[in-house]
Amino acid sequence: MRDSYHESLESVVTDLVHMTDAVQTAVREATKALLEADLGTAESVISSDSAIDQLHDELEARCFSLLARQAPVAGELRTVVAAMRMVADLARMGDLAAHVAKIARLRYPERAVPEGLVPNFTLMARVAENMVETAGRSLQERNAHDAGQLADSDDEMDELRKSQFRVMLSKDWPYSVEAAVDVALLGRYYERIADHAVIMAARVIYVITGLLPEGENWPVA
Amino acid sequence: MRDSYHESLESVVTDLVHMTDAVQTAVREATKALLEADLGTAESVISSDSAIDQLHDELEARCFSLLARQAPVAGELRTVVAAMRMVADLARMGDLAAHVAKIARLRYPERAVPEGLVPNFTLMARVAENMVETAGRSLQERNAHDAGQLADSDDEMDELRKSQFRVMLSKDWPYSVEAAVDVALLGRYYERIADHAVIMAARVIYVITGLLPEGENWPVA
Repeated sequence: MRDSYHESLESVVTDLVHMTDAVQTAVREATKALLEADLGTAESVISSDSAIDQLHDELEARCFSLLARQAPVAGELRTVVAAMRMVADLARMGDLAAHVAKIARLRYPERAVPEGLVPNFTLMARVAENMVETAGRSLQERNAHDAGQLADSDDEMDELRKSQFRVMLSKDWPYSVEAAVDVALLGRYYERIADHAVIMAARVIYVITGLLPEGENWPVA
Repeated sequence: MRDSYHESLESVVTDLVHMTDAVQTAVREATKALLEADLGTAESVISSDSAIDQLHDELEARCFSLLARQAPVAGELRTVVAAMRMVADLARMGDLAAHVAKIARLRYPERAVPEGLVPNFTLMARVAENMVETAGRSLQERNAHDAGQLADSDDEMDELRKSQFRVMLSKDWPYSVEAAVDVALLGRYYERIADHAVIMAARVIYVITGLLPEGENWPVA
């Protein structure tokens, strides 16, 4: 009984890592759809989002069942509680990747991101994707140090976003109002993917150390 | 022991309702700051957000403690699990209200919302605030019917947002690119407040019936 319990708990964590992989793929493919105006890839990201939502529902139900049947305590309870929050963050990151893909689809055959901001978005998307990867890997390896680094990556994200605003709000923005609105929302989506990766990393630290990291760099939700 | 346990569980729900009240106030005040270009109110919403985050941390710790000490099952376990998700949604709604207030502060003494969109935002803010109120009240009264109505209010929200886009992206948008970017983000913040109210309502239904409502109107995160 206890062995199957530990296996169930460990398989929840393993599947959370798989869910993170699926989210990372969604972010990477959404970026490809966006920057290459690739309709097929956009459609595929949008339709794959329901699989991520299903993983959410299934993992949440397994966590609930562990709580109901096993009444875990201490580190194991922390793991289950953290898992229930992480699935929500991961489902949300999947939604945000789908939002990026929807803007790519809406503007097809044009590219939603104007030429002058392609380097910025290329970098922003890479930072976001790396943050998702680090969150998943630090969970898999129970690596609080790497999880802790994510708050720094998030500072880089904030700088990239500020730089977008400087370009958009300069007097000589050469593109349309529509392009500015797209850039504002797309930047927001990548920024939120990064935020959720940081929140997930905070939960990884909590699983390992029993304490949530505190301070301005660590949002609660 | 069991009596004090039931009291603890009930006081978590009572304090979730109080937290919802605090969020509703934050949304109302943020809207006042935005539509009246009221700097003092904007500052007050921004500085009050840390109190909402503290409620999040405190309520989450109390839920953890209930799980660790009492190993609740059935409806009581559902209540604790739902509470742990609801605090995250409420903390996020508080952040979004603070984001609205930050845009109001950034544009002061100007008003961030251009004249032509004041009626739209007035309505949007009212719908969002009412949705937060309904989410809190349906939790307090364990009223699955009222919670179920929230998906309809969310459709109203989506219509208001579409109407914003029609105005912004029409060929004769008479305002600046900056105003369009503000409107795009502000509209997004209110829309997300409404989404979180719907997600919270889904959890209220889950507490009462044991089942999460399904379908496109009920996002998972």
